[in-house]
Amino acid sequence: MAQIGFIGLGRMGFAMSRNLIEASHSVWVYDINPSAVERIVALGGHAAASAAEAAANRDFVVTMLPNGPDVEETLFGAGGVATALAKDTLFIDMSTIAPDMTDKIARGLSAMNIRMVDAPVGGTSEVAERGDLLILAGGDASDVARAHAVFDAVGRQTIHCGENGTGTRTKIVNNFMSTALNILTAETLAFAEGAGLDVARTVDVLAGTTAGRGFVSGAYQRKVLNHDISPEFGLALAAKDLNLALNYAAGLSIPLPVGAAASQIYAIAKAEGFGVNDWSAALETMRRTAALPRMSFDGQ
Amino acid sequence: MAQIGFIGLGRMGFAMSRNLIEASHSVWVYDINPSAVERIVALGGHAAASAAEAAANRDFVVTMLPNGPDVEETLFGAGGVATALAKDTLFIDMSTIAPDMTDKIARGLSAMNIRMVDAPVGGTSEVAERGDLLILAGGDASDVARAHAVFDAVGRQTIHCGENGTGTRTKIVNNFMSTALNILTAETLAFAEGAGLDVARTVDVLAGTTAGRGFVSGAYQRKVLNHDISPEFGLALAAKDLNLALNYAAGLSIPLPVGAAASQIYAIAKAEGFGVNDWSAALETMRRTAALPRMSFDGQ
Amino acid sequence: MAQIGFIGLGRMGFAMSRNLIEASHSVWVYDINPSAVERIVALGGHAAASAAEAAANRDFVVTMLPNGPDVEETLFGAGGVATALAKDTLFIDMSTIAPDMTDKIARGLSAMNIRMVDAPVGGTSEVAERGDLLILAGGDASDVARAHAVFDAVGRQTIHCGENGTGTRTKIVNNFMSTALNILTAETLAFAEGAGLDVARTVDVLAGTTAGRGFVSGAYQRKVLNHDISPEFGLALAAKDLNLALNYAAGLSIPLPVGAAASQIYAIAKAEGFGVNDWSAALETMRRTAALPRMSFDGQ
Amino acid sequence: MAQIGFIGLGRMGFAMSRNLIEASHSVWVYDINPSAVERIVALGGHAAASAAEAAANRDFVVTMLPNGPDVEETLFGAGGVATALAKDTLFIDMSTIAPDMTDKIARGLSAMNIRMVDAPVGGTSEVAERGDLLILAGGDASDVARAHAVFDAVGRQTIHCGENGTGTRTKIVNNFMSTALNILTAETLAFAEGAGLDVARTVDVLAGTTAGRGFVSGAYQRKVLNHDISPEFGLALAAKDLNLALNYAAGLSIPLPVGAAASQIYAIAKAEGFGVNDWSAALETMRRTAALPRMSFDGQ
Repeated sequence: MAQIGFIGLGRMGFAMSRNLIEASHSVWVYDINPSAVERIVALGGHAAASAAEAAANRDFVVTMLPNGPDVEETLFGAGGVATALAKDTLFIDMSTIAPDMTDKIARGLSAMNIRMVDAPVGGTSEVAERGDLLILAGGDASDVARAHAVFDAVGRQTIHCGENGTGTRTKIVNNFMSTALNILTAETLAFAEGAGLDVARTVDVLAGTTAGRGFVSGAYQRKVLNHDISPEFGLALAAKDLNLALNYAAGLSIPLPVGAAASQIYAIAKAEGFGVNDWSAALETMRRTAALPRMSFDGQ
Repeated sequence: MAQIGFIGLGRMGFAMSRNLIEASHSVWVYDINPSAVERIVALGGHAAASAAEAAANRDFVVTMLPNGPDVEETLFGAGGVATALAKDTLFIDMSTIAPDMTDKIARGLSAMNIRMVDAPVGGTSEVAERGDLLILAGGDASDVARAHAVFDAVGRQTIHCGENGTGTRTKIVNNFMSTALNILTAETLAFAEGAGLDVARTVDVLAGTTAGRGFVSGAYQRKVLNHDISPEFGLALAAKDLNLALNYAAGLSIPLPVGAAASQIYAIAKAEGFGVNDWSAALETMRRTAALPRMSFDGQ
Repeated sequence: MAQIGFIGLGRMGFAMSRNLIEASHSVWVYDINPSAVERIVALGGHAAASAAEAAANRDFVVTMLPNGPDVEETLFGAGGVATALAKDTLFIDMSTIAPDMTDKIARGLSAMNIRMVDAPVGGTSEVAERGDLLILAGGDASDVARAHAVFDAVGRQTIHCGENGTGTRTKIVNNFMSTALNILTAETLAFAEGAGLDVARTVDVLAGTTAGRGFVSGAYQRKVLNHDISPEFGLALAAKDLNLALNYAAGLSIPLPVGAAASQIYAIAKAEGFGVNDWSAALETMRRTAALPRMSFDGQ
Repeated sequence: MAQIGFIGLGRMGFAMSRNLIEASHSVWVYDINPSAVERIVALGGHAAASAAEAAANRDFVVTMLPNGPDVEETLFGAGGVATALAKDTLFIDMSTIAPDMTDKIARGLSAMNIRMVDAPVGGTSEVAERGDLLILAGGDASDVARAHAVFDAVGRQTIHCGENGTGTRTKIVNNFMSTALNILTAETLAFAEGAGLDVARTVDVLAGTTAGRGFVSGAYQRKVLNHDISPEFGLALAAKDLNLALNYAAGLSIPLPVGAAASQIYAIAKAEGFGVNDWSAALETMRRTAALPRMSFDGQ
């Protein structure tokens, strides 16, 4: 089994290092909180007196730290990990950090001929405890393949997102959507309650429709991502429904800020002429506002 | 089988009245577009010269019209349907209209001792053609039960949402969420592309996470709706991730208006002290902004 | 002096009709609230038993009512004013109503050969009491000139905005800006307080800068409206400052929803290449999102 | 006259150091761009080979740099300015940077017994050229008084905002408002044009109303900041006008994202019961969302 250095024993990191130990790896851990280290030692891990000691002469070194500057400091600060790494050590950063920082770290390690995979994870601490994390890996295919020794012990699925930096970027994009969707969900249920509806019954309805189940693996794949924007549900009708809701809520003094922001994109999409098209054509509107190259659509 | 008057043969209404005919009901149809009427007659329906003629002496009269004022005018305008209805006719409005209008119509019919169910539908025109609509019914239980003769021919599922007006309200709330989610989905995929990611691979990731699959029948039912806001995923961490995404996107000049609106609700939630709680506590923040009575939470 | 029918004695209408009486006009008033009518009679006005009686055989008939449907009903409902108007009466609607309704009313009156001016007012009830309203008039120049008999008694300034409907539209646009600016002002001062600043001192600062004094008759006239977007203050720098503020506020859990929405327009503007231009180039970005024809700029 | 070190010769810094020279001060300048240094020397300044050389043994050292990390690096990086400063030198940072960075820099200098004033400026580069900047100074009163030797040469007005850090915070808050107002202004004029209005005439109207002239030194000082929220213009009416505008614009497919965000705050304010109060009561709503202590109002 592998020799692994693991730095960062927060709720996530603790669960992950325990799963590595249970998978029979030899794990040297370091954290600024000594009690977390002691608890891992009680489970069969090895205490390191410093991040550098945890990292020296391992097959893999994993960081699971709160913020990008923490990872940077751990690697490149005084007594940092980078100089302690053996040439054949694979460094794996599983923290969720800013893409610019991942890129900076990747450049710094590359200049030292150290291989790296950025591999932030999806899932809560409970998911981490079950070893069921989703791992979003960015790096060379051979490095990601090698990292499976680690990933398989902590996660149920690894997706190779592309080269270095794509793991971090995919995580950022995924969490962008989930954290915003959380607020949209909150708005919707507060709206239901304010409208006098039974919230539990409303949840049952939403759970069976696009509202509660999402578009991504349904309408989007079938329509706009397939270059087909013939109307399955017309964008102008969607805009009408949203404005109907906003007006009704305004009369009840129920704020719907996420929905109000969304309604403005429908206005842009209609001004662009997409009112007669499928509502998924909103993707092309958002792409244009970001100055991405124009998509082509079947029959247009 | 039933005698049914059906008023409004747009894409949805056409498919629905065809399914009623195929279920062996006798269907009298009216639309301002004579060619739609002719096509229904060719399928075995009966042409009515006016809405009132379509409605006279039927078991059920169904309206499927674009806007609330259309339904009001059809019922109560000169030569309107309301006075043509037999006392034992059940009126079913399946249009998606403003709740205030549904309430006004329900009051008007009630004053004439006419029974009514508001029953807007979920699903696209293709879903309507397959007879697979979701029907959101508001009205007395006995009326909704009776209306199943109609509903079963056009839909796969009927949810009785409560008294008159709740069908319309549930539809409005559902479509609020789906139409806003459409824009959030568009933002997310434009963000992925602008960040240099492979969009198809990103879709695969999202399809397996809360981002793409929603909260409603998962985290929300387990946590905040269950009066439990102990942190499964901490609200302050969610806010941090969202702001990380917004900053990264700002640097790339990628607009994320829905996400930016959502981030402000996290600020309110954190100011209220929910940062340490589960991210689903955002529901309580939205409830408070709407001045709904405060929820109680376990252990608080 | 003129014979004037005045319909609608809310806070604004009461003050306006009193000013008309004080200007020696003969004023017949009607309101659903009899006590308001009585108070006007006590000031020298004449009570009318109905809107139609107030309107019959006058030089001018003025409506000052809460909503568009009120004006429509007053004019065209049963016993409505429109049929009571003499052919040489000028009808003046001074209510703030939806443009579509103004257009509908104008068409209805035009079909009856009745002249109309839409003339909503700017100013609070205190301004109305002083006779200092701003009057935004839409209609033929000759009608607006004739209406000055009324306008001069209630306002300090009349702006002829164009043909019928432009008074209403100018009012809507003006109040759009002021009501949104109210929230931006509230956000800014809550931000100042949350940042630990002395609010009174901050107000003194804002009162001397573009922030508190506006762009409209300064930077915009000098730059973008003059087809000059060479940078006086660079758009990318403005975006940087706004994002600096949003990040600082996020760290303090201070919500800034209007500012967050604004930041997304900077992202679009930068994606369009306006980062190097004057910040007033944001106008062109907003124009493009509304699909207005492109502006030309000097030296481009 | 004073001996001044000036670091950072961008458009703003160049104009400011020239004005210091013209005010007969001895000015040692440093910039990474040698041509800017040469141009200042041609005007009578002195070239320094490094930031530290510019800073050594001066009465005042001024930094005018793009970002916070630039100031930090200049002061505390290798060969940094902080160690070169004489004990009686007053350090003045006139850059616009994040408040957290100003605080960090102030702590660092304080630990070295170096006096500091944070003094970002308001005004464009043209204003800087005229020596008419607004200076927002944070620091001890005696230090700010001493810094007038510099401020009077580059600005027309200095406002002492409070202790160290308040200059930066006031600048951030001011620019928050101005940069957001820029977008609101752009929205408004695009709306006017899309509504078919003459834009120049609309600008004339706005220039005479609260919309174009602001609230800060008018309605806010008179009402909410004076603890008076009796209605001069009712908040619910303001909300009604804003929603009227948003609906009209939605029908024209004109996006108004800033206004849409603002409308949601009116919903919160109305839910809190402020609909009957003055529209400036929106301040209290924003204060509450930020969890600031509640204001008291006269007569409530």
